[in-house]
Amino acid sequence: MTSRIAAIRKAIDAARHPALYMVDTISSLASIDYRHDEWGVDVTVAGSQKGLMLPPGLSFNAVSEKALRASQGAKLPRSYWSWEEIIANNKTGFFPYTPATNLLYGLHESLAMLMEEGLAKVFARHARHAEGVRRAVRAWGLEILCAVPEEYSNSLTAVMMPAGHDADALRRVILEAYDMSLGTGLGKLAGKVFRIGHLGDFNDLMLAGTLAGVEMGVPHKKGGVLAALDHLAESARAAPRKAA
Amino acid sequence: MTSRIAAIRKAIDAARHPALYMVDTISSLASIDYRHDEWGVDVTVAGSQKGLMLPPGLSFNAVSEKALRASQGAKLPRSYWSWEEIIANNKTGFFPYTPATNLLYGLHESLAMLMEEGLAKVFARHARHAEGVRRAVRAWGLEILCAVPEEYSNSLTAVMMPAGHDADALRRVILEAYDMSLGTGLGKLAGKVFRIGHLGDFNDLMLAGTLAGVEMGVPHKKGGVLAALDHLAESARAAPRKAA
Amino acid sequence: MTSRIAAIRKAIDAARHPALYMVDTISSLASIDYRHDEWGVDVTVAGSQKGLMLPPGLSFNAVSEKALRASQGAKLPRSYWSWEEIIANNKTGFFPYTPATNLLYGLHESLAMLMEEGLAKVFARHARHAEGVRRAVRAWGLEILCAVPEEYSNSLTAVMMPAGHDADALRRVILEAYDMSLGTGLGKLAGKVFRIGHLGDFNDLMLAGTLAGVEMGVPHKKGGVLAALDHLAESARAAPRKAA
Amino acid sequence: MTSRIAAIRKAIDAARHPALYMVDTISSLASIDYRHDEWGVDVTVAGSQKGLMLPPGLSFNAVSEKALRASQGAKLPRSYWSWEEIIANNKTGFFPYTPATNLLYGLHESLAMLMEEGLAKVFARHARHAEGVRRAVRAWGLEILCAVPEEYSNSLTAVMMPAGHDADALRRVILEAYDMSLGTGLGKLAGKVFRIGHLGDFNDLMLAGTLAGVEMGVPHKKGGVLAALDHLAESARAAPRKAA
Repeated sequence: MTSRIAAIRKAIDAARHPALYMVDTISSLASIDYRHDEWGVDVTVAGSQKGLMLPPGLSFNAVSEKALRASQGAKLPRSYWSWEEIIANNKTGFFPYTPATNLLYGLHESLAMLMEEGLAKVFARHARHAEGVRRAVRAWGLEILCAVPEEYSNSLTAVMMPAGHDADALRRVILEAYDMSLGTGLGKLAGKVFRIGHLGDFNDLMLAGTLAGVEMGVPHKKGGVLAALDHLAESARAAPRKAA
Repeated sequence: MTSRIAAIRKAIDAARHPALYMVDTISSLASIDYRHDEWGVDVTVAGSQKGLMLPPGLSFNAVSEKALRASQGAKLPRSYWSWEEIIANNKTGFFPYTPATNLLYGLHESLAMLMEEGLAKVFARHARHAEGVRRAVRAWGLEILCAVPEEYSNSLTAVMMPAGHDADALRRVILEAYDMSLGTGLGKLAGKVFRIGHLGDFNDLMLAGTLAGVEMGVPHKKGGVLAALDHLAESARAAPRKAA
Repeated sequence: MTSRIAAIRKAIDAARHPALYMVDTISSLASIDYRHDEWGVDVTVAGSQKGLMLPPGLSFNAVSEKALRASQGAKLPRSYWSWEEIIANNKTGFFPYTPATNLLYGLHESLAMLMEEGLAKVFARHARHAEGVRRAVRAWGLEILCAVPEEYSNSLTAVMMPAGHDADALRRVILEAYDMSLGTGLGKLAGKVFRIGHLGDFNDLMLAGTLAGVEMGVPHKKGGVLAALDHLAESARAAPRKAA
Repeated sequence: MTSRIAAIRKAIDAARHPALYMVDTISSLASIDYRHDEWGVDVTVAGSQKGLMLPPGLSFNAVSEKALRASQGAKLPRSYWSWEEIIANNKTGFFPYTPATNLLYGLHESLAMLMEEGLAKVFARHARHAEGVRRAVRAWGLEILCAVPEEYSNSLTAVMMPAGHDADALRRVILEAYDMSLGTGLGKLAGKVFRIGHLGDFNDLMLAGTLAGVEMGVPHKKGGVLAALDHLAESARAAPRKAA
């Protein structure tokens, strides 16, 4: 699920709480709208391997003035969060340590791809796919982990397994039979949910294949793929230009 | 559709006809069983870009003793069919002209992949996918171009468009809306059929995505994807090991 | 060595000879100046794997109106030289057969690279390297195969072995000891010359490495590398901008 | 220069000093002999981008039992040096965070390449190249930064610029004229030395090219390339098998 970032900022401000506000966008940046400055976030964490469509290996911080000042006065030892040296080097285009250069070339290209499609279209594409996934989940008679529709994630959907079924056993079956790796439930959700990713470089037919793999493996009602295809076809007609 | 290669050889022999027997395997080699020697073929033509899972750029000939003798005595000018120089060079591992070396490295790997999976399994995989496609076509209320079941191709399925619909217009719509390029009808079938390829590096969920793209675009009954998924799930349970 | 293409054209015309004029540019195109139209060539043959800096696998023909007319009336069977179908297809951007698509993407990039450097600079770079090679050969006390300076090739230099030495034995020694593959002498030059390639994606330090490999292997005087370095350093100072 | 790791260990032990012993092998691992266990090192730091012949992006720690125990009891906050989670995950082949997967595939291959050549040969190859570099530096009339021959590095050679010359200006000239990037002097050596790297995937002719680039740019005596080539040719004859 997603968090209502701007609303939380307002609540922090209303409570006059001095806490720094940190947001993890690893599974959403560049697939779902996100505004570090406008929403008043202090520290944003992101990674290369999801919406930015790259191999894993790069991580990014966006840092507010407030966070920077706090960092300069802070006594706690840091390494990842030690920004001064890299900010100083960035002015001349250098890095204080050896960076993962190949991924920087990839990042240059993935940003060009995102700008070419246009962020508004990228976000709309993921919203449309996410709605297709949710219709499929409901048609299967399963529950989406997220109870609040306005907090649905457009990049990932966690699905509750029916009582008495182990999500990780299902994931293994689907991996073996259909060569598709679903996400696992973490922490107290372990074994109880599986996660369907629909972010990054993703189009309608990849979504259809993904849902087909779940439908062939999941011990429940059919009809999910069909429900998603109805949604995709209908919304493709509404927006007749190239889907991806 | 495929031809009954061995049966045709028998017919040629029964008629005592001296013709050389040439077979085009470009769209089938390494996806469907084929036996140059055992079936008595004189010249087999193949290419890198289909069942061998490589970019286009290589073509191969398998040549019988009979074809070789005919070639040696023949008066007609040739270039592609002029085998002597390359046969002489092959003995030492050389080529008479500069070959597409990068594709030869790729070929080494694709042959290793085919041997690792095992040809019997490769052929069974394509047969299972092709049956799924045919069930989808029938569920759509459409006709497969090939009328004789024993000549069904397991690598490509040509589908007749309903009267009054242009196959190439459909192909354009599907390309634009779903980023999938279907094959066109050639010669007198132009505009009347579209072709679904299901060969080479192909698995269940790619097939599901492919059929979803056709079903969302084709002006006819639904139910094809579902019919194919039923077949895939059922036959996956029958053969529970890794499908691809 | 290179041929004086324009001068030969004039000689053909002066003799009023009706022959078509065909030029093989495989080892020179995009490394040495060449003008199909201006020099009155009828058929030019080129390949991807040398000056165009690509893997082997593409070949090109440039064809004059005269050659095209001759082809249309000709009775001789052809395949490579059968241009009508591809000319017709090119109008719409298609190919009559499956082309080596990956190499076409590569060609797009290599042409962009050549235009970015500028053809005049590309040709000057190869001329400078070729002069360095020739100075090295002379310093070794060896002879360049080409006796006429105005026919020196700027992309390849064939070097005569001293009497009593086998060029192919030298090539084997250098390949084993220094991991460098020199070109062999063809036809009646087999065993008598080795060829140093200095074309395509090539810069000063690659040339230095290349000549070092020859100098360490060749059974003759030293001083070739030094003579080439003197030339390179001197001409780099004369043209102080980026050499490659 | 390299440090005498085993000797330092002995000195620490002789002094009965409780310090942990940490060694930075980033520029040497897999190019020069190194023995974490045998030499009694507590923490070794390595990276993917030098002797391991990969793009930058991976770093490694080898950790002794003693360092591990110290870490478990330590109060100081850590992130890079926090090993428990990754050690626990490694047992099942997992990572606690998303690793740079593409580089792990590359590492698998680079280790295979090192084992195929054999570490003894890899180290001998670098020792031979390093000796060639040092002979070149002396022939140029320049000084190697390292005064103690037994501490010469076989992967990098830092060269002192003559008084009155700026090493970084030289580096810029060589980069522009010869497309070669030499290493810079760090800290108090800034501007006073340049560094020649000769590690990882490196062979005789790359070394010759490298030294040629320095010789053409450096404001001093010639003869370095020749001195190195003499050494390479002589030692190649002594060990006539494939150099790299």
